[in-house]
Amino acid sequence: MSKFLELKRECYEANMQLPALDLVVYTFGNVSAVDRKEGVFAIKPSGVAYEALTPEDIVICDFDAKIVEGEMRPSSDTKTHAYLYKEWENIGGIVHTHSLYGVSWAQAQMDVPIFGTTHADHLTKDIPCAPPMADELIEGDYEHMTGKQILDCFAEKGLDYEEVEMILVGSHGPFTWGKTAAKAVYNSKVLEEVAKMAYLTLQINPNAPRLKDALIKKHYERKHGKDAYYGQGC
Amino acid sequence: MSKFLELKRECYEANMQLPALDLVVYTFGNVSAVDRKEGVFAIKPSGVAYEALTPEDIVICDFDAKIVEGEMRPSSDTKTHAYLYKEWENIGGIVHTHSLYGVSWAQAQMDVPIFGTTHADHLTKDIPCAPPMADELIEGDYEHMTGKQILDCFAEKGLDYEEVEMILVGSHGPFTWGKTAAKAVYNSKVLEEVAKMAYLTLQINPNAPRLKDALIKKHYERKHGKDAYYGQGC
Amino acid sequence: MSKFLELKRECYEANMQLPALDLVVYTFGNVSAVDRKEGVFAIKPSGVAYEALTPEDIVICDFDAKIVEGEMRPSSDTKTHAYLYKEWENIGGIVHTHSLYGVSWAQAQMDVPIFGTTHADHLTKDIPCAPPMADELIEGDYEHMTGKQILDCFAEKGLDYEEVEMILVGSHGPFTWGKTAAKAVYNSKVLEEVAKMAYLTLQINPNAPRLKDALIKKHYERKHGKDAYYGQGC
Amino acid sequence: MSKFLELKRECYEANMQLPALDLVVYTFGNVSAVDRKEGVFAIKPSGVAYEALTPEDIVICDFDAKIVEGEMRPSSDTKTHAYLYKEWENIGGIVHTHSLYGVSWAQAQMDVPIFGTTHADHLTKDIPCAPPMADELIEGDYEHMTGKQILDCFAEKGLDYEEVEMILVGSHGPFTWGKTAAKAVYNSKVLEEVAKMAYLTLQINPNAPRLKDALIKKHYERKHGKDAYYGQGC
Repeated sequence: MSKFLELKRECYEANMQLPALDLVVYTFGNVSAVDRKEGVFAIKPSGVAYEALTPEDIVICDFDAKIVEGEMRPSSDTKTHAYLYKEWENIGGIVHTHSLYGVSWAQAQMDVPIFGTTHADHLTKDIPCAPPMADELIEGDYEHMTGKQILDCFAEKGLDYEEVEMILVGSHGPFTWGKTAAKAVYNSKVLEEVAKMAYLTLQINPNAPRLKDALIKKHYERKHGKDAYYGQGC
Repeated sequence: MSKFLELKRECYEANMQLPALDLVVYTFGNVSAVDRKEGVFAIKPSGVAYEALTPEDIVICDFDAKIVEGEMRPSSDTKTHAYLYKEWENIGGIVHTHSLYGVSWAQAQMDVPIFGTTHADHLTKDIPCAPPMADELIEGDYEHMTGKQILDCFAEKGLDYEEVEMILVGSHGPFTWGKTAAKAVYNSKVLEEVAKMAYLTLQINPNAPRLKDALIKKHYERKHGKDAYYGQGC
Repeated sequence: MSKFLELKRECYEANMQLPALDLVVYTFGNVSAVDRKEGVFAIKPSGVAYEALTPEDIVICDFDAKIVEGEMRPSSDTKTHAYLYKEWENIGGIVHTHSLYGVSWAQAQMDVPIFGTTHADHLTKDIPCAPPMADELIEGDYEHMTGKQILDCFAEKGLDYEEVEMILVGSHGPFTWGKTAAKAVYNSKVLEEVAKMAYLTLQINPNAPRLKDALIKKHYERKHGKDAYYGQGC
Repeated sequence: MSKFLELKRECYEANMQLPALDLVVYTFGNVSAVDRKEGVFAIKPSGVAYEALTPEDIVICDFDAKIVEGEMRPSSDTKTHAYLYKEWENIGGIVHTHSLYGVSWAQAQMDVPIFGTTHADHLTKDIPCAPPMADELIEGDYEHMTGKQILDCFAEKGLDYEEVEMILVGSHGPFTWGKTAAKAVYNSKVLEEVAKMAYLTLQINPNAPRLKDALIKKHYERKHGKDAYYGQGC
């Protein structure tokens, strides 16, 4: 019997949240969940419809994207997941979707500006949009290089992956992560909502002002600071 | 046994309407219900998912936002609710959400103009948008001062809280209230619908005219005037 | 026992279609159905929530809007329905809603231009938008005069109510009608879809051309002409 | 007993996907499925509501659009289907809808530009929009000529129907096809999603750049190329 049953179950349940939260149609997304002790992660098989997916279908890979266990081919984005797990030691789950507003900002090749407290409840920066990759990277080990593109963007903008848990890859779409796969899925939904609000805000007022620093700090700190008082403190 | 069972139930049921009416995702909202005789109000606990919420989880607070009964930490917005209950003696319930169109107008920092009879059926004024708070208020007792910001806006614009039962707090989102918690929830849904209609109206015709005074008066009076003939008169 | 049982049932079922088709929230709409032989129509009671509505609640009125049978107060728009039934002898049902796109075009005070075959499958003209009423009409017998406003608009634009089964009343919202109450509801849904398509079309291309006459004729005729071949011919 | 039972069932099930995928309201769409060996195709009867449709209602026609089996009148668009089956020997199913974003781009008379990888996962070209037909073609054998209009557009733009499985007919709406009826339905949903993303992209950034060639090639090839590694390879 597989020793990864629980990991597969966690990955399966996080994947099933994507259609439930209206973040994917058909097979346009994937979630992975990591087991740091075993040095592996569980990921959705490629091109399998959500309504047909079972926990047994989930594929186990190592951080070089080699299959450790599983009958099926893993997500075509597996190397991007592997890259991020290897580089960012404190993340427990990763999500990629083609959600509508996330993709549209990515196609517009623009960061999502921070306009309000809904955004600041989750991060203090604009949601970054990495530029589309250079041709030689696309033609080479594309999915691996997508991971590198994400890290390069974070380095250039001076962002911390434990504070900013989401990015748009230009012309492509959103990637999110978190302490757990469930938190990474939550971040995908938050990104989609915040991206939609920012879109509407600019339609209503093209000169809408950036959220003031005091509010950015207040809302982020009350939820994530050392004296946080949002939630049940557990 | 708690003497606030009925109040908690009222508060619980009003809270559960928010996801049912598509006004919140996750925990992005809260409803409270007041008991004027006891000088307390019931409010949603902070950061608890709606699908996990039970009537027993509801927290009872006094008008200084002190917990009177309950195991859990109340909503992080509790002091705003307390402030409004203390100042406005005739309201029975308060709602705060991050609903999409309400937030987008708040982020645009613009009042929602009165364009049609759907709006006038509920209020005769533009839906006010309070400016974002001054830095020293944000850094101080933020949620308490959010209540003060709302009252200051009403004072400055000469609005009556019994006629205008809704406001947008700039860069943040909508607050609504009413005679009961259920009415306050109704007002949140109305605000969202009216905000969406006003958005679309300006997209179709940026020069759309304000609703004429005769129609504002007619529609408001037929529903709320002394000779009102809308509804069953009970 | 009431002799209007069947009429009430028809009216009730048509009313229940409004929330099912996403055309109303709360009580923002009403449907009536006529019995020409008896000279009466059945209409939704005012301000009653759809989920609480029963066939017994439906009110029977004559063409002067006097109650013939029923315990409840009829829709506040009853006089508009009565006016249209009296003037237009071949209609069997009327619908009024505050549907999102219909209202937004009405608030923009613009006709919905005919851009495509979806529109031409149902009517060959722009969906007319009547101007808001004059103040003295609003302050007088408002709902009666709303009926007159609709007829005046049809007269001025030279429209035939048996060909164009819908109108927007400026600053207010859509009214539709048809041979039956069910057909009037169908027209309300068609209006909403066509209004949304026209909105999106202009957002994509502000210079989108009007549908060419040959296509208007072809699509309308294949569905409604004497040699119509759409549907099962029954 | 009919020898087309299986074909009718395939056609029925593909048709029922249209309302399930939010691609049609009422009867605004139709799907056909071909049997190449028998030289016939199965198609939805005209004007029948989806909720009333049964597999027995499906009509069997030959490639001249003559009825081979069935009690009902086939879709008014049957001659367009027949034309495409006759000309394009490798397609197994065809879909026509009046889906919201597809129609809106068609009414705007604009190709849907390729902005991102969601688009490139399915085709490497802009989604073509055929110009509205000449008056004499509309007034003649309209639905037959609609098929010709589609082929003329493909010829003029140098497109291959096995690579580009979708088109917008100007002022009208989308047609899609595929190896099977189910794949044609899938393409209709993809077209609608991609059309919506392109709409939003241009609203956010009117100068959004076309997807770079390296990404177009990469995404199309990884899913459809000879070394494709998306999906389970079956």
